[in-house]
Amino acid sequence: MRQGGAIAELIEALRCLPGVGPKTAQRMTLHLLQRDRDAAGRLSEALRQALNKVGLCSQCRTLTERSLCEYCASPARDRSLLCIVESPAEVFAISRSTGYKGLFFVLNGRLSPLDGIGPEELGLDILEQRLKNDGVAELILATNATVEGEATAHYISDMARRHGVRTTRIAHGIPFGGELEYVDGATLSHAFDSRKDF
Amino acid sequence: MRQGGAIAELIEALRCLPGVGPKTAQRMTLHLLQRDRDAAGRLSEALRQALNKVGLCSQCRTLTERSLCEYCASPARDRSLLCIVESPAEVFAISRSTGYKGLFFVLNGRLSPLDGIGPEELGLDILEQRLKNDGVAELILATNATVEGEATAHYISDMARRHGVRTTRIAHGIPFGGELEYVDGATLSHAFDSRKDF
Repeated sequence: MRQGGAIAELIEALRCLPGVGPKTAQRMTLHLLQRDRDAAGRLSEALRQALNKVGLCSQCRTLTERSLCEYCASPARDRSLLCIVESPAEVFAISRSTGYKGLFFVLNGRLSPLDGIGPEELGLDILEQRLKNDGVAELILATNATVEGEATAHYISDMARRHGVRTTRIAHGIPFGGELEYVDGATLSHAFDSRKDF
Repeated sequence: MRQGGAIAELIEALRCLPGVGPKTAQRMTLHLLQRDRDAAGRLSEALRQALNKVGLCSQCRTLTERSLCEYCASPARDRSLLCIVESPAEVFAISRSTGYKGLFFVLNGRLSPLDGIGPEELGLDILEQRLKNDGVAELILATNATVEGEATAHYISDMARRHGVRTTRIAHGIPFGGELEYVDGATLSHAFDSRKDF
């Protein structure tokens, strides 16, 4: 495709969105420039505003417009429970689907030494301060069930042990509605080993 | 999901993109704010630049940064051929896949009286001037094979006839690699009626 600089640059810029390849980016660009210029202007402005206003909560590192997020600022939440997740999306998912009323701590990543992501990048120094001072009674590990997520969970549980804080991990197993035949081997094996009295 | 204004506004703004629903928009927002703030800044700026710079070619109404697009400005193209398409995406597709060396005229839509899209919205007054003055020998209709695309093609061919310009329509039929069993009835019927000596 041959075309002018600003169009080509917009196509290229749209490819930063997850799941958007060159063809989708071209379709989006033509749609915006041809049919929905008002929306394109609003999108440009919304991006600018969000970049200006949205930062990390100073206490739990989730995305927020204030220095303390709504969870950390709420007096109604149980401060003795602290749930560790990898991203703000999981804060939303847990809040929506469970009755959890404690606080969160968002790693914004997982330990991955090869990518240069160590304890400092995940804010584990802030977490350690909270374990020391904030009266946390139970640390709930909700990192993903990947190799890196597990390694991160182990690292954090070691830290919690040093501060005498009880650590739990959310359960893994067969998802509801999942058929054994289609569940991957690692999940099935874990579910089998973790069987409970019925 | 509960969250601050700027985040919610960015999620809403991203939904203007074709094919992006609320869940995808949320995933894009978190990705941009959490992991790719530089790209988000570039995207905001690319949108602003494109809106400022990109307009319609004064001669063929495709998207361009100049007053004349690269096709209309090129001395190498055959000015006696004029291909009518519905959108700039089709200009790119035809240029990429065919050996067509003539000029284009982009309707940026199709006749649709119920949506308030008449001849003026499609720039047909500009097209009529070109048919009158620009020495067009053949008008190639490449509007889509939809009811509205066909109606638009008929309207334009009437206009060409008034100016004594020969009109052709790109062929419709079974796509290469298409199996008869899976082709829709209208296409199959058209292909059958348009059979040629072999």
